[in-house]
Amino acid sequence: MSYFTFKNHRIFFDLQGEGQPILILNGIMMSTKSWDAFVPTLKANNMLLRVDFIDQGQSDKAQIEYTQDTQAELIYELLHTLNIKPINIVGISYGGEVALHFAIKYPQYVERLLLFNTTAKTSDWLLDIGRGWIITGKTRDPQAYYKQTIPVIYSPSFYTKNLAWMKKREVTLKPVFSNPVFLDAMERLTISAETHDVRKQLSSISVPTIIITATEDYLTPTPEQLYLHEHIKNSYLLSLPGVGHASMYEVPFVFASLVLGFVNNKITDYNL
Amino acid sequence: MSYFTFKNHRIFFDLQGEGQPILILNGIMMSTKSWDAFVPTLKANNMLLRVDFIDQGQSDKAQIEYTQDTQAELIYELLHTLNIKPINIVGISYGGEVALHFAIKYPQYVERLLLFNTTAKTSDWLLDIGRGWIITGKTRDPQAYYKQTIPVIYSPSFYTKNLAWMKKREVTLKPVFSNPVFLDAMERLTISAETHDVRKQLSSISVPTIIITATEDYLTPTPEQLYLHEHIKNSYLLSLPGVGHASMYEVPFVFASLVLGFVNNKITDYNL
Amino acid sequence: MSYFTFKNHRIFFDLQGEGQPILILNGIMMSTKSWDAFVPTLKANNMLLRVDFIDQGQSDKAQIEYTQDTQAELIYELLHTLNIKPINIVGISYGGEVALHFAIKYPQYVERLLLFNTTAKTSDWLLDIGRGWIITGKTRDPQAYYKQTIPVIYSPSFYTKNLAWMKKREVTLKPVFSNPVFLDAMERLTISAETHDVRKQLSSISVPTIIITATEDYLTPTPEQLYLHEHIKNSYLLSLPGVGHASMYEVPFVFASLVLGFVNNKITDYNL
Amino acid sequence: MSYFTFKNHRIFFDLQGEGQPILILNGIMMSTKSWDAFVPTLKANNMLLRVDFIDQGQSDKAQIEYTQDTQAELIYELLHTLNIKPINIVGISYGGEVALHFAIKYPQYVERLLLFNTTAKTSDWLLDIGRGWIITGKTRDPQAYYKQTIPVIYSPSFYTKNLAWMKKREVTLKPVFSNPVFLDAMERLTISAETHDVRKQLSSISVPTIIITATEDYLTPTPEQLYLHEHIKNSYLLSLPGVGHASMYEVPFVFASLVLGFVNNKITDYNL
Repeated sequence: MSYFTFKNHRIFFDLQGEGQPILILNGIMMSTKSWDAFVPTLKANNMLLRVDFIDQGQSDKAQIEYTQDTQAELIYELLHTLNIKPINIVGISYGGEVALHFAIKYPQYVERLLLFNTTAKTSDWLLDIGRGWIITGKTRDPQAYYKQTIPVIYSPSFYTKNLAWMKKREVTLKPVFSNPVFLDAMERLTISAETHDVRKQLSSISVPTIIITATEDYLTPTPEQLYLHEHIKNSYLLSLPGVGHASMYEVPFVFASLVLGFVNNKITDYNL
Repeated sequence: MSYFTFKNHRIFFDLQGEGQPILILNGIMMSTKSWDAFVPTLKANNMLLRVDFIDQGQSDKAQIEYTQDTQAELIYELLHTLNIKPINIVGISYGGEVALHFAIKYPQYVERLLLFNTTAKTSDWLLDIGRGWIITGKTRDPQAYYKQTIPVIYSPSFYTKNLAWMKKREVTLKPVFSNPVFLDAMERLTISAETHDVRKQLSSISVPTIIITATEDYLTPTPEQLYLHEHIKNSYLLSLPGVGHASMYEVPFVFASLVLGFVNNKITDYNL
Repeated sequence: MSYFTFKNHRIFFDLQGEGQPILILNGIMMSTKSWDAFVPTLKANNMLLRVDFIDQGQSDKAQIEYTQDTQAELIYELLHTLNIKPINIVGISYGGEVALHFAIKYPQYVERLLLFNTTAKTSDWLLDIGRGWIITGKTRDPQAYYKQTIPVIYSPSFYTKNLAWMKKREVTLKPVFSNPVFLDAMERLTISAETHDVRKQLSSISVPTIIITATEDYLTPTPEQLYLHEHIKNSYLLSLPGVGHASMYEVPFVFASLVLGFVNNKITDYNL
Repeated sequence: MSYFTFKNHRIFFDLQGEGQPILILNGIMMSTKSWDAFVPTLKANNMLLRVDFIDQGQSDKAQIEYTQDTQAELIYELLHTLNIKPINIVGISYGGEVALHFAIKYPQYVERLLLFNTTAKTSDWLLDIGRGWIITGKTRDPQAYYKQTIPVIYSPSFYTKNLAWMKKREVTLKPVFSNPVFLDAMERLTISAETHDVRKQLSSISVPTIIITATEDYLTPTPEQLYLHEHIKNSYLLSLPGVGHASMYEVPFVFASLVLGFVNNKITDYNL
């Protein structure tokens, strides 16, 4: 049970294992717990650092207004406190966006970037989708919130093939989705991403950056990752055919293997 | 102002022009009016038939339970009444699905099928998305309904580039989306598609069938149209890169040109 | 049997039908004859103009050095002679490239552009592929020339499914591919495309331009058409999944329907 | 310098490092030497085994007729001799196909399969491409052989961006491509793949199989890997956008990272 303090918030983090360090940054609805199933493989030969952002999991609910840039400051505070530098940063969606903010501001802290289902900007389209989530969250109707936010983050094929698992997840999520504390946190997290726009700063990123796109990602679809790849110089693009936005849930073995492969392969240049 | 009667419902239709006949079938939220801008070009050298399904536009609200198969019966009644046979059928989304039901049951009435953004089955995934729409409809909150149903049917790039047009549309749609009569009709239309599944009957379709997929369609995504193409024997597949579910709104010139080209090119076999 | 004179070469052309005029420009190995099977549908309601470029079909072999720009001058001479202005230009591959040169130089002569399997530039990669064709042509070995130039222009699925037709084509082409006159003309045609590069002039094109890409085109692959689409302002992009470079041979019904649809739909703007 | 004997041929292999074992199988034109630049990273924490097939590199030229199945027997002999079992097998193109034959016949020897740019069958299309290579090989013209076999295995964008490297490669390859011994071996290797067809046996493969497709692969294009993915039960599909057939040369860092990640991540099941 580890905590540190950031702007008067108690922030939860978890550090395990030894080796090339990996920091993994949560998607908006996730928490450190979401990665539990990944811990054994990710810590087997690596140091694994997880953290709950403000308004996530075991970290404090927000007492301030914040943006994704604030969350990037939180990461800086964490790494500075732990004296880990540089580190490989893996982010998915919201977490990938915070990773971008962090890598732009603190390049010397970043060894490599792995960005899953990430965008350079919250488009007007994504912004309106988010506002829809907020409006529905205010109804406190868990069924409404589930139907609006969950199917869309999975590919139709995964959702259909794993319907029993999805239904189990629905049962798990219902109490969460009727909890005003969670829903208000989700609202603040959603709003914290509304101003996200690092398009002009992408050219300053020079660490090896691996961008993973998923062909059935309907929140941060493939054109977003093509944009990242075109504007980040040392970037590599991989695509997951048939996979949706929640790539870590749909293809966990692929997700974990990509993390391990790209983090632990220390040679980037091949004299062929 | 033309009407006919189907199962005691007054059904609105509109017939204009002369030449190779085209029947155009609405998407779920559309009506005959949605095609007004297309009428001049589609009727220039063709007979153009439009119709409002039960619970759409100027047709009666439903007094019965119905499915998309019922709507297909309505089409049969219409064509039988007008004595038009065979006809080229263009359908988008809900309309494409009704077109499939109709073509399977009344092959002799169909000259060619043009299916935009259509699926062979309402997957469990799409079903849950639809249920989310229904729940939100019951709140009678037009803002909530707009945010949940509209952004998702456009590609992010179209939505963002045409934000002024989208905002105008939001203003137009708000009164509609707060109207209980409309919302209840939408609920019934949504439910009428829940049992849609013609996968096993696709092999019986033998008319030339043109399947149009859009790469940013997040309701009936590309794998759905690949499935149709693989299972309908005389089918042709075209893809619209960067376009969303509401393809007729995003690329109207392309939409109309495809209709005219595939309807009016009477030669399918080329002895090359 | 119609001819006109261009730079002392007798140039063959064929004009049939009445209506919105269509000029169709051959791919490198093609001639006016290659379109015979398309004539009935393309002239049914349109004026159809075909022409053999210098070194193609029934036109004279070259007595001069020339580039694709020279072929564009030939088109100007033809249209000027026939007093047809403006005209819809359909080009495939080499023909699409000449169409680009022409549209840049003589915009007032162009109503619409339809570009199938076309590139803005002969890349170093394509240049070396062409040089391979030239070297093999010099061997005068028809089998070698066939195997090098023909399979690559078809998608594997078409080639495999239509193997009997391909084998018949091989028999037809063998005498042609052992004919030094043909092979020397092919060499000059290939060289005439080596300097093709209109990237900087694409922004001057303002006529409606329809760009058709084919996902299994291995000579002018999809990134080439994406480039055209990004740089030609009033352009529309369509994709043919599973189709190869010789799209007119693989999906003739689709090819002809697209031509008719985009040429005969006179309305480009839709007030939605 | 290690050799073993297989059907009276002296076969060269190279074994380095310790840890989870990796066997890497060459593409048709490659040899163990082609992987030299990859050795440091692949052997850092793994045992790396390389081998030259019959007619490749430092192994004997063929004194027998053989197929890819014969090469699979060679692999069995090698692993049996070295007493390594099971092993992770990485194959590219020809090597991936031999890997498939081997995995079908000797499942107990296979830990995991990584198949880059691999096909389940030599299609009639690919067969004719190969025959073109053979015909041109017989001319002993290195320029002709280079232009026919090399550009096609790279994506146009890589070839164009790395033109200086390609030209250097052309200089290196010219003497090889004029060497009758090499060209005759290439002919036999090409013929050995002509009968490749394991489509019906794919369902027997049950080891975790990672299939990597490259969107600009013009020899074993993406539909081939989709087929493998659909027919191998425990398979995972990844796509490399913009990459050609020689993926190991175009994106070596990605290639090596994928190998390390998928081999060294011992956990395939995640209880999410």
